[in-house]
Amino acid sequence: MREQIVETAVVEFHRRGFAACSVDTITKAAGVPKGSFYNHFKSKEALAAEAVGRYAADAEWNSPVDPDLTPLGELRARFAAMRDVVAAYDYTRGCMIGNMGEEAADHSEVIRATVRECLDGWTTGIVALIQAAQAAGEVAQELNAELVGSFVLDSWEGAVLRAKVVKTGRPLDDFFVAVFDNLLR
Amino acid sequence: MREQIVETAVVEFHRRGFAACSVDTITKAAGVPKGSFYNHFKSKEALAAEAVGRYAADAEWNSPVDPDLTPLGELRARFAAMRDVVAAYDYTRGCMIGNMGEEAADHSEVIRATVRECLDGWTTGIVALIQAAQAAGEVAQELNAELVGSFVLDSWEGAVLRAKVVKTGRPLDDFFVAVFDNLLR
Repeated sequence: MREQIVETAVVEFHRRGFAACSVDTITKAAGVPKGSFYNHFKSKEALAAEAVGRYAADAEWNSPVDPDLTPLGELRARFAAMRDVVAAYDYTRGCMIGNMGEEAADHSEVIRATVRECLDGWTTGIVALIQAAQAAGEVAQELNAELVGSFVLDSWEGAVLRAKVVKTGRPLDDFFVAVFDNLLR
Repeated sequence: MREQIVETAVVEFHRRGFAACSVDTITKAAGVPKGSFYNHFKSKEALAAEAVGRYAADAEWNSPVDPDLTPLGELRARFAAMRDVVAAYDYTRGCMIGNMGEEAADHSEVIRATVRECLDGWTTGIVALIQAAQAAGEVAQELNAELVGSFVLDSWEGAVLRAKVVKTGRPLDDFFVAVFDNLLR
């Protein structure tokens, strides 16, 4: 029943947002008695933090990619996989990590800490690929990989937000050109 | 009384978010009777859309800057003015336009349309400065100013979100290096 609640929470928080999604919404959607919720979770906040972690762990970003890709090719393929997810939702929902950060970072320390961890982990992966691309001669040595890697993730989150607002993939297309043709060279 | 409600709504929606901020919260904070709200506004949504427009119109972005600056210098100065605002709030709140887009774009057409307009208008200003910087020889001609200008704004929104999550100005500092030293050159 705990697992059922977490899986439902990922979907419902992603679709509705934190404040607009109540414990009642989640237990109803999960088909479990509301009374059982607090046997498993201290609060809606605690569940939301767990749901963010689950969303990040399950993200398409972590799927296998063609092992023959260069480091820069892999970075592009990983973002392309994320773009496909955003497009499949018709540019609704956005990124749950970004949404939760936007909505709850000022109001819940446990959610803020989890969002931060997820973004840190994701940044580490991006930075490693940029460093490998530098070692392979695909990206100029003089770029600060840590700084640019962190910036690239922030840009992605901003582009996903803009896509949610304009309801087209154009901001994501712009991201690919600006990052892979103009910035990482 | 209408003006008092709009001004209070800008502050309260910015601080609390859309779903977490009720009509009751706003009328109490504005010191006006709750009953009077619907004499002035059709709904919380309608007020939120108006508040987003007001926030954008009043943004520090539109303040005068040193007229002797080059176009690229002006672009940097305008973002620096926004950074000062974000820092003055100790990296809480974030950008109200981004927040509202994140939270309400899927759920309110009137808010989505206003957020889109505000981002479009802001993009137009950024693009014009990049084009002027190209004309002045400060930025390479081969950059697509419209595409990069839109990307720069998305990156800014992403950086402000990250700053809200990490509660430091580092993502904003990274934005300045990546955009002004690495991208616009």
